[in-house]
Amino acid sequence: MLQIALAQMRVVPGRPDRNTETMLKYIADARQQNADLVIFPEMAIPGYLLGDTWEQTSFLEECETCGEEIIAASKNIAVMFGNVAVDRSKKNNDGRVRKYNAFFTAQDGRLVSPEGMPYPFTVKTLLPNYREFDDARHFFSLQKLARELGVATESLLSPVHLAVHGTTYSVGCLLCEDGWSDDYGLSPMKILREKERPDVFVNISSSPYTLGKNAKRHRVFSQIAAEAGAPFLYVNNIGIQNNGKTVYTFDGANAAYDAHGVLRLSGAPYAETAQVFDLETLPDRKPVAIPDEPEAAHIFRALSYGVRLFLETIGMKRVVIGVSGGIDSAVAAALYARVLPPENLLLVNMPSVYNSETTKGLARRLAENLGCRYTTVPIQPSVELTIGQLENATIENLFDGTTDRLSISSFMAENIQARDRSSRVLAGLAAAFGGGFTCNANKAETTVGYSTLYGDQSGFFSALADLWKYQVYDLARYLNETVYKREVIPQETIDIVPSAELSDAQDVDKGQGDPLIYPYHDFLFRSFVERWQKATPQDILEWYADGTLEKEIGCAPGLVRNHFPTPKSFIDDLERWWNQFSGLAVAKRIQAPPILAVSRRAFGFDHRESQNGPYYTKKYKALKTKILGE
Amino acid sequence: MLQIALAQMRVVPGRPDRNTETMLKYIADARQQNADLVIFPEMAIPGYLLGDTWEQTSFLEECETCGEEIIAASKNIAVMFGNVAVDRSKKNNDGRVRKYNAFFTAQDGRLVSPEGMPYPFTVKTLLPNYREFDDARHFFSLQKLARELGVATESLLSPVHLAVHGTTYSVGCLLCEDGWSDDYGLSPMKILREKERPDVFVNISSSPYTLGKNAKRHRVFSQIAAEAGAPFLYVNNIGIQNNGKTVYTFDGANAAYDAHGVLRLSGAPYAETAQVFDLETLPDRKPVAIPDEPEAAHIFRALSYGVRLFLETIGMKRVVIGVSGGIDSAVAAALYARVLPPENLLLVNMPSVYNSETTKGLARRLAENLGCRYTTVPIQPSVELTIGQLENATIENLFDGTTDRLSISSFMAENIQARDRSSRVLAGLAAAFGGGFTCNANKAETTVGYSTLYGDQSGFFSALADLWKYQVYDLARYLNETVYKREVIPQETIDIVPSAELSDAQDVDKGQGDPLIYPYHDFLFRSFVERWQKATPQDILEWYADGTLEKEIGCAPGLVRNHFPTPKSFIDDLERWWNQFSGLAVAKRIQAPPILAVSRRAFGFDHRESQNGPYYTKKYKALKTKILGE
Repeated sequence: MLQIALAQMRVVPGRPDRNTETMLKYIADARQQNADLVIFPEMAIPGYLLGDTWEQTSFLEECETCGEEIIAASKNIAVMFGNVAVDRSKKNNDGRVRKYNAFFTAQDGRLVSPEGMPYPFTVKTLLPNYREFDDARHFFSLQKLARELGVATESLLSPVHLAVHGTTYSVGCLLCEDGWSDDYGLSPMKILREKERPDVFVNISSSPYTLGKNAKRHRVFSQIAAEAGAPFLYVNNIGIQNNGKTVYTFDGANAAYDAHGVLRLSGAPYAETAQVFDLETLPDRKPVAIPDEPEAAHIFRALSYGVRLFLETIGMKRVVIGVSGGIDSAVAAALYARVLPPENLLLVNMPSVYNSETTKGLARRLAENLGCRYTTVPIQPSVELTIGQLENATIENLFDGTTDRLSISSFMAENIQARDRSSRVLAGLAAAFGGGFTCNANKAETTVGYSTLYGDQSGFFSALADLWKYQVYDLARYLNETVYKREVIPQETIDIVPSAELSDAQDVDKGQGDPLIYPYHDFLFRSFVERWQKATPQDILEWYADGTLEKEIGCAPGLVRNHFPTPKSFIDDLERWWNQFSGLAVAKRIQAPPILAVSRRAFGFDHRESQNGPYYTKKYKALKTKILGE
Repeated sequence: MLQIALAQMRVVPGRPDRNTETMLKYIADARQQNADLVIFPEMAIPGYLLGDTWEQTSFLEECETCGEEIIAASKNIAVMFGNVAVDRSKKNNDGRVRKYNAFFTAQDGRLVSPEGMPYPFTVKTLLPNYREFDDARHFFSLQKLARELGVATESLLSPVHLAVHGTTYSVGCLLCEDGWSDDYGLSPMKILREKERPDVFVNISSSPYTLGKNAKRHRVFSQIAAEAGAPFLYVNNIGIQNNGKTVYTFDGANAAYDAHGVLRLSGAPYAETAQVFDLETLPDRKPVAIPDEPEAAHIFRALSYGVRLFLETIGMKRVVIGVSGGIDSAVAAALYARVLPPENLLLVNMPSVYNSETTKGLARRLAENLGCRYTTVPIQPSVELTIGQLENATIENLFDGTTDRLSISSFMAENIQARDRSSRVLAGLAAAFGGGFTCNANKAETTVGYSTLYGDQSGFFSALADLWKYQVYDLARYLNETVYKREVIPQETIDIVPSAELSDAQDVDKGQGDPLIYPYHDFLFRSFVERWQKATPQDILEWYADGTLEKEIGCAPGLVRNHFPTPKSFIDDLERWWNQFSGLAVAKRIQAPPILAVSRRAFGFDHRESQNGPYYTKKYKALKTKILGE
């Protein structure tokens, strides 16, 4: 009998004091439930996404001290947990003190060492260094340690032997990526399996949630458990952590697989739980079925959790949302209204002469449906004052004594309106209301910078900026149908053409809207950003030429021919958006608010980018010439 | 006789086409000067700081094609150059195609392979993964390759044998970090030296400029050349490259050391040159003395070059600068006036009721001294309109049918002024003028977020945000005395107290200014950001307690006692700024413009950070209690 508690704890990044307190409580609870072993996630004490906080000596010391508290608390119980481990006698390759991403096992106040290791802990072997991960920047891998010691990595990887009630269990200890070894040419699982057949594998993780990841993890872990012929336990934290630009939710989703790879236990997403079970009777439990939910359900769960915890993290209790009557701001409002009490949510409509009665009415109806606070602040007087001031300002040319004036084009006036709304009204209102204002941009707009800097591109947080437009619509319908079970987002908001309403040419009543054809551009842009091998105009044009474009990018068939009757119109559109994506949009993203990530490539610290301008390869140019018959 | 040309070329990141063209021109020139070998920098074809462009298959192909052009051009001459090398039969650890940061040697249209390597090129052994570097994210190191092949790294590292005029030269090929091996436990130099005594070492680099780096590099390279007893050639590119948030200049500074480590040849900083010399007579050349210049000279050189190339990169020809009469905006204006013709520079003063006649006069005098364009746009009418609109807006409480109003505090009104200036006036003027407006924040303000988001924190580029306030003053004096050789920045601007002039309490005529005590806070903040092991309140308080604080942080002695008569006043100040630095300032930096880096830790992609809030360790709290006698 080995009673195990899987602690799906909330880890607060950068707060070893709070995390240690949480862990001590879990340990006490587990002891009360007669657990023999309690397992915490990777980096349970420091948190995982900390930027360069790892370069603070005092922070490392603090984490070690907290680790000692946990070890001391392991009386009459075994505790497995992740923490940073420091070896002051050695250096990392950057000249700083040696740090490991480590797996500690403590029992009765002492550490239980894996055999053959020079340290009383297991060192993470595979350090992810892609997407939002920067492990290799801070931590020394087991492979590097092996090379330094002049031994094979294999010799350093051993199970931990844990004696409970007179039985000794061999436990294969893995840290997150160690269980995902396909691309590494070295499998910690396999090494442990071949060395001695562990009785159980434990994978402690700090694994950010993204769409579809759990299904993939389930396939991988189920398979490796079955291959190993041993139970496999997965422990992940909940909470949110960020890299500055990109904010991730952690859904926990703890899992216990039996020796045949059948899922027997699963932690409810985003819930603080500690499931206790007996390892021996694990196979007798009812198999857990993964519920089949629509994508919008996953998105809503991640977004509402992420928004709630982000507000908590930055200590913000009140929020202002500019609502235009359009879909993005309506979805943002309906989302925040699930997280905040109605008196802490203020919706603001900011009409100019270009806003239709239709959208003004929709904005108000939305607020009424949500029952929150609402106000209207027209921007026309201020916009006119600004245009007048700028056009009448005398520019003195001090090099020749002449003077000049500037003129404001209608395009400039559009941006003046957008900045007036955000930097003047929303920022001022938010301060007076005691909170922040949201950025409601979606991922399609963010990709090509279809937004105004210090205008609609601003805000304290972008909750929707990792959603393509079709996902925003799906979420709108899900909010009405499933979350609220009534029409909070007016159906007309879902039905009208998306439009910025910044000029006469964007009249929603005439069906005039954004220049983006979302059912096509959502998928074109996704291919630039989210494909593992990123697509460029060369790939797009090659697919276009051989008739596979719609299949490759995943949009509906027939769209391309409908919208682009000639190759020239197709190429003009492609270059227009590629120029935007690689040009001004990068400049805008550099100054954009943090984004809540749900996709497998979110802008910010995941999709890293330089402001280098658009590039067209020679192959692209040749193919273009051929297609255009030039 | 081996005639070598060191090509200090400008590399344009992400433009293999342009870089290849540049290289072909250098090759033709070198041939004309009877050079036998021309050496280009690391990643000469693709550029180095490209974000995730490395994930674009078509971009990799393009780089290979360009590399083939260079190889084909090596008729009757040998060419060494850096490029990305791709092996499509293998994978990186992220599952993407295998990429190496590679050193190619071509001669007579063919590659010259190092012995023992499975590839016809040298692979970078040491991949920097600290500061702004992300090498390990994209490239597979020679060490990993050795492990994959099951051989020792040593067996893969061999000199290249180059036959010229019937003599075979053994050339030790190194890529940048391979020459800086102190913290790696493996020295490519040493391995090459022990394998066979190379006749010459060649280090091709793409090494961003930072203050003091050249002096350190000179010490390191001089010493390793002497140790090896062989000439050592260093080839670096010029230009600018960026990681989005952080923009780096590359100064070239090519160098040739003789076998005794004496510097015999040195490339002028930031100049496109190709020095040709005979390897055999290198020791006969006059030793090059490194000029002893003040720090401000280095800063001015890097900043003016960086600003010029950044404008070129983003295609911006005209610039608007908001000038307050204060030091930061004056220095920015004097800097941009060296880069742009006077008709392309527009200075704007934007007074409110709080701006003194003193500073308004200084702003105008600055513009007159620079002889550029100048205008005045008062913000008072707009600020009053905004405050009135916000205070009079009826907030409907749709949950209970009541209404409310908001009130604007004087602190909120300060931010309204700052946003009015930047997001309303400067952004509007810049668009109408056909350019962008600058952010003039310095590093001290940036560290603690002493700025308003969408206000003075905004702009297209922050040229001064990596300079501490004392460096801004030094640069001001240097601009007047050495660059302009006349008082362009009015002496009074240098002499008055720095002040935001956003309220009655910030009256420069009464000597009332910023809450920052720059001679102390510059150095306190630097310890948070720039120390290799970052300081935190715990370190600061320990140094304070043992009397070593001023020495540790490098400020003038006596300052701490003068400004903080009691431990409580010291601790209050420390916590105030630490809270700001780790709190709201992070949120502001996330949305700040790109910064031109000159220090060894610039904000952005170098100093990576998460928005996790301030942390105080248990040791700090205990020491604080002890000091305060609580």
